[in-house]
Amino acid sequence: MKVNGTHYRTIWLNDDSWSVSIIDQTKLPHEFKTVPLTTIEEAAHAIKSMQVRGAPLIGITAAYGLCLALRGDASDETLARAYALLAATRPTAVNLKWALDEMMAAVRKWPSSLRIAAAYARAAELADNDVETSRLIGVHGKAIIGGIASKKGGIVNILTHCNAGWLACVDWGTALSPIYHAHNAGIAVHVWVDETRPRNQGAALTAYELGAHGVPHTVIVDNAGGHLMQRGRVDLCIAGSDRLSARGDAANKIGTYLKALAAKDNGVPFYVALPQSTIDWTVEDGVEEIPIEERSAHEVTHITGRTAGGRIETVQVTPPGSPAANPAFDVTPARLITGLITERGVACASSEGLASLYPERAVNAAAA
Amino acid sequence: MKVNGTHYRTIWLNDDSWSVSIIDQTKLPHEFKTVPLTTIEEAAHAIKSMQVRGAPLIGITAAYGLCLALRGDASDETLARAYALLAATRPTAVNLKWALDEMMAAVRKWPSSLRIAAAYARAAELADNDVETSRLIGVHGKAIIGGIASKKGGIVNILTHCNAGWLACVDWGTALSPIYHAHNAGIAVHVWVDETRPRNQGAALTAYELGAHGVPHTVIVDNAGGHLMQRGRVDLCIAGSDRLSARGDAANKIGTYLKALAAKDNGVPFYVALPQSTIDWTVEDGVEEIPIEERSAHEVTHITGRTAGGRIETVQVTPPGSPAANPAFDVTPARLITGLITERGVACASSEGLASLYPERAVNAAAA
Repeated sequence: MKVNGTHYRTIWLNDDSWSVSIIDQTKLPHEFKTVPLTTIEEAAHAIKSMQVRGAPLIGITAAYGLCLALRGDASDETLARAYALLAATRPTAVNLKWALDEMMAAVRKWPSSLRIAAAYARAAELADNDVETSRLIGVHGKAIIGGIASKKGGIVNILTHCNAGWLACVDWGTALSPIYHAHNAGIAVHVWVDETRPRNQGAALTAYELGAHGVPHTVIVDNAGGHLMQRGRVDLCIAGSDRLSARGDAANKIGTYLKALAAKDNGVPFYVALPQSTIDWTVEDGVEEIPIEERSAHEVTHITGRTAGGRIETVQVTPPGSPAANPAFDVTPARLITGLITERGVACASSEGLASLYPERAVNAAAA
Repeated sequence: MKVNGTHYRTIWLNDDSWSVSIIDQTKLPHEFKTVPLTTIEEAAHAIKSMQVRGAPLIGITAAYGLCLALRGDASDETLARAYALLAATRPTAVNLKWALDEMMAAVRKWPSSLRIAAAYARAAELADNDVETSRLIGVHGKAIIGGIASKKGGIVNILTHCNAGWLACVDWGTALSPIYHAHNAGIAVHVWVDETRPRNQGAALTAYELGAHGVPHTVIVDNAGGHLMQRGRVDLCIAGSDRLSARGDAANKIGTYLKALAAKDNGVPFYVALPQSTIDWTVEDGVEEIPIEERSAHEVTHITGRTAGGRIETVQVTPPGSPAANPAFDVTPARLITGLITERGVACASSEGLASLYPERAVNAAAA
């Protein structure tokens, strides 16, 4: 998507043909800053510190991290060490492990002299595939928005949580891709942007990218969505996912579950948009089985923003003696999800729904 | 309750016997500052700017505001003007209108020469009654917490939203009064404190007052409660209310509805604690009929806190071009509420439940 008129992806190979660059998303919306990654440690740090975030982008960054690791030494030991280091950066998003497994399969079969070239080729392929996947999610999701627009005959109000836009992927996004496609096709949309505490990915990233693309939107606190649905001011919810279980339970940013409950209670359709790489076929009961990352209390007690004078400042909002807890994700049970929007089309959030989209995986799962 | 070892109420008559003082709650938790109110305009400003907030305290502040207005001129015209000015400060809390009506009934019947004395006497009575009401809510609510403690045999984890503590009342609080009473009686409690965006009354006020009283607590973002309930880490929710309909629908701080939905979905009891003055007997369907205050977008886009250097600073968290919306309350339907904790005891959130506690009002309502 475009930033100040220039088309960007969220991660790209530099002109030197070996280092990659990313957008430092911890600086948004106040500063647009790109950062080069030259070592696996820098790639791991970028994921851990959330300079890059979003399940698909985490996967692609890990893929390039593996490329960087192989530059010094492409032995089996380096490969194993790099895999372990990158896999440990974030525990919830399954795309991370998926991308690393894809890379291992593409690299390990070659002698070490050919591994670097194979790794860069596969990482580039994964990045390009992610763009195409996001585009297809947008095409399928646009049809849902278009259907509501035809029936309603006015602006379609869509609520989204966190950032599952192009900044969470390589381009287009997952949850926001249908919105961009609808907007580009001339369908009138307006987006309620949950600010998404504690890290404010909604207020900082979703508002930023929707604004940059000219999509009408309004930022709200995470508490407001239920009230807006009670008053008929939300036509549709679309969220992303960090890990989807084989029966359709969706782990996503903390608070997603609350919006799904409110949508159910008010008859508002609630969709989850995701690529195949987000599905964890090994997990059935997402609520019980998906590990939930516990992040630093500092993210709750302190908030960073821009002062009237333009300085970036971090302030504490709690009393000094009060501890805080910070679970980063929750799991929305499949029963609350109207449908899954994937690169292959839309289906029910259930084993049967997923089998209809991915018959080859359903066969594998049954055989396992 | 105590602040640094000194017992405070949230509003009190000064030694001059006519001006009152309040705690400026917009400065908490970073600074404990008291502010004198000497005119009706200062009282109205204190309510509007949320130096005082919380349904019961708003009512008492308005009562003293009326006293201050009568000091210059105790005519019918002044009384009517003062009533109108104070009633318009906040639209959702019904205690405001209730307290003003109580004051009018106590004052209007006297000739103007006696009105000031009558007003101050009634305001003091309302303040004392509020303390006793809060104490009784605490006694009744403590029994619920004690019951869970006996059954569970460990620490009782209680989630609360916003601030319905002593800072929202004159003393003790509504939702927090049962917690203080349980804690004082030696029942082991731990409170999950929703930070309560956008104004952070949980992080700023509830955490502050629980900390000052030594009650174990943990601050969480508003998004986290559903996940904690899914994982069995919440035994009980208690919220306050700004207006309760005659059938038991509860208007409260925005986001309360989402927690009630999660409590229902996970079998966690959800109680609303309130005094009789919060009940609006003229409203049946709270979701449709209770007016919801829309506050400034600035409360969403900007956050105030303390820098590492100790300065109080306000920072913007959204991109400059992104608008924000800020509905301040939502309504939790009675069907999601396990019970109402009042000064007269605990009852179902229904017309019948309220009739069992307030038979004299139920008769009036039936006759009307």
